[in-house]
Parts: sequence; C-alpha cells; structure tokens
Amino acid sequence: MAKSTQLIDNEVFRAFATYTTIVLLKMMLMSLITAYFRITRKAFVNPEDTESFGKGESAKKFLRTDPDVERVRRGHLNDLENIVPFVGIGLLYALSGPELSTALLHFRIFTGARIFHTFAYLIPLPQPGRGLSWAVGYSVTFSMAYKVLKTAWLL
Amino acid sequence: MAKSTQLIDNEVFRAFATYTTIVLLKMMLMSLITAYFRITRKAFVNPEDTESFGKGESAKKFLRTDPDVERVRRGHLNDLENIVPFVGIGLLYALSGPELSTALLHFRIFTGARIFHTFAYLIPLPQPGRGLSWAVGYSVTFSMAYKVLKTAWLL
Amino acid sequence: MAKSTQLIDNEVFRAFATYTTIVLLKMMLMSLITAYFRITRKAFVNPEDTESFGKGESAKKFLRTDPDVERVRRGHLNDLENIVPFVGIGLLYALSGPELSTALLHFRIFTGARIFHTFAYLIPLPQPGRGLSWAVGYSVTFSMAYKVLKTAWLL
Repeated sequence: MAKSTQLIDNEVFRAFATYTTIVLLKMMLMSLITAYFRITRKAFVNPEDTESFGKGESAKKFLRTDPDVERVRRGHLNDLENIVPFVGIGLLYALSGPELSTALLHFRIFTGARIFHTFAYLIPLPQPGRGLSWAVGYSVTFSMAYKVLKTAWLL
Repeated sequence: MAKSTQLIDNEVFRAFATYTTIVLLKMMLMSLITAYFRITRKAFVNPEDTESFGKGESAKKFLRTDPDVERVRRGHLNDLENIVPFVGIGLLYALSGPELSTALLHFRIFTGARIFHTFAYLIPLPQPGRGLSWAVGYSVTFSMAYKVLKTAWLL
Repeated sequence: MAKSTQLIDNEVFRAFATYTTIVLLKMMLMSLITAYFRITRKAFVNPEDTESFGKGESAKKFLRTDPDVERVRRGHLNDLENIVPFVGIGLLYALSGPELSTALLHFRIFTGARIFHTFAYLIPLPQPGRGLSWAVGYSVTFSMAYKVLKTAWLL
C-alpha cells in the first residue's frame, strides 16, 4: 500500500489535491444552485420533472426557460471550460517539480479567481469584474502550461 | 520503464483505472447516440451537415431542434458536469491510500448510478428515478472529496 | 522533491504531458475566439456585458445570438466532450506501460485530429471533413481505453 501514498506525501501534490478538490466542489455546487432556481422559479426542461406540479396541460406551463436558471447554467459551463484545463495542466504542473511557494501562489490565485467569478456571475457584479476574474484564472493555467512544456517537452 | 507501471501495480489504482475508463466510455457513447438521433430524426444544427439530404432550401428544413436529440444532449452535459469531478477527485482519492474494499464500494456505486442515470434520462423513467441516481453519484464524489481533504489538506 | 519528478522523468509520461497541454491550450483558445466574435459581432448574452455599448434600450439590441458565436461555442463543447475522455483515459494509458513509439502515435494522431476538427468546424469545411476528424480522435481514445482495461482490469 506504500506506493499509493508516495504522491500524496509530496507537499506540492498535497497542495494540488487540496485546491483541486475545493475548486471541483465549487463547480459541483452549481448543480445544486441550478436545482434551487429550477424549483423556486418553477422552470423545468424535462416533462417528467413537472409531474409533481400537476398533470397534463397545467404542468406544461412549467416547461420554460428562466433568466436566473440560464445564468447559473452559463456559470456552470464556464466552470467546466476553465476548471477542466486547470485540473489537467495543474496535475502535470504539480508533477513537474515546482517550488512549493510558487505552486501555492498559482493554486491560490486560480481558486480565488474562480470563486470570485461565480459571485460576479450570479449577483451579478458590473463588468469588468467577471471578465477580469476569468482572465486571472486563465493566465494562471497558462503560466502552469508554460512550466509543464518547459520541463516535459517531448513531441 | 519500471516507473511507469508502479501506479498501475497498485490495486486501488487499478480499480480506479477500470471504473474511470468504463464511465468515460459511457460518456463517449452519448456522442454516438446524439449522432444516431440527429440522423434518424433528420435534425441538424450545422448547414454543412445537411448537404447530403439535398441542396439549398430543401436542406434548410433539416436545420431544426428535435426533442429526442436535445434530451440526449442534456444527458451528455449532465455526464460532463458529474463525471469530470469524479475523475479528478477520484484520482486524488485513489492516491490517498484508501482500503481497497472502501474504494471499490465508491467506484462501483458511482458507476452504477451514472449508468442508471443514463437509462432514466433516455427512456425516460418517471421522477425521482433520475434525480435519485444523480444524487447517489454526487454523494459518492462528495465522500471521496472528504477523504482527500482529510488526507492531503495543505492550504 | 525527488518523488515529484519521478513521473515526469518517464518518456511516455513526458509525451503525454506535452500533448495533453497542447490540446488543453487549444481548447482554452476557443474561449478567446468566442470573446472575439461576441465583441466584433456585438452579440452578448449577459445584460451587464453590453453596458459599455450604451444604456437602457439601446444596449438591449446587443443581447442576441449570432451564428458565428454559436458555431465557436459548439466547437468548444465538442472539445470538452472529446478532450476530457482523452485526458482521463490518456493519463491511465500513459501509466499502463505502453511502448514510447505506440504512445506517441496515439497522442500525435489525437492532437492532429482535434486541431483539424477545429479548423473544419470554424471555416467550415464541407462534410465529411469534420465528421472524420472527430471519428479519428474518438478511435484513438477508444484504443487507449482498450489498453488500459487490458492492463488494469480490476472490477
């Protein structure tokens, strides 16, 4: 069993594990927020989801889009588009032997930027708040990608 | 070459590799089901995809949305939203040194729940079938996240 | 710190790291292309994004969908659907001890296919150009999945 804990004993990898888990849990939270708005706004997309609100025609009026639901869904998709590269490139970065302090800087800024991005999207805050937080997270992933390519390059 | 097979020699990691591959192949299957419904329902979104069905105006009528196509696409997006966290957190979980039996329990329940979720979405089964299978998979990922944070925590 | 660089010292893993980073950067590029088309076509989805173009009713006309924007977004989602399985299964494949030449063949074909797919989607090229490049990438991931399951199988 020793082998399985080798990576998790490495401090950079532990930091990666912590921040990746936090940011993936944050992304999963978007599903719950979507469900919350679908139920409170009574705005569903699947006919079978409206059956508890009545039968036949009376249930059909709940098959509609709602601005708040759509906003959360856009935030969720934006998370997928940005957190997937962070997790993939971040894993390779954590294995490329960075200094702990440099790695922590990357992970902390990305995680902070994505949490801010979610608030900026859902409240919503005026631009360029959301745009800037997106760009900060994007730049962190780009910086890690540069380190990975510099260390591992084998084409 | 020995190094590259260290992880794959670990039983928990082998179980993770098996179930992750199964669940990702299941997700990839959604692309084929979408293509099947697009072709049989003649419902496309890109003009260049309809050219084999005729030219000009006669092809335009195939640029439309179809309820069956949209249903598969929603199932596919739901897979992305749930399987991405499973793969990311599950990898860290597999490296955090869990008991093989506990790990197998997590991987099996998640995989079973997502396969059931796909059937529940596509048939479709009456609610709360789909909702419950979604919640079961979500809870498994949450439980693995807890173990990762307890083992690796370094903020 | 030695441990953290073990994996990255392995040639197959270095190749995986290189191609995964390239293909994830390519996916991230779709965000910039979407932003470019949203700004040049003046087609936005969030009211707060149109405020720099005027206030009140005059800004509302920019809340619309545009065919070019939607095309890039479909390409981005197709990337997510196909690159996520590649990264997940490819990581397990790289750890399953394949020959370097075989692994390079897989990674190169997948990366080439997805870059071609993006051009085929955005130009757009006539079918079956896009369809074939999608199928090639899909097949590569499937071939890696077969190797992973053959090596790691533990159900």
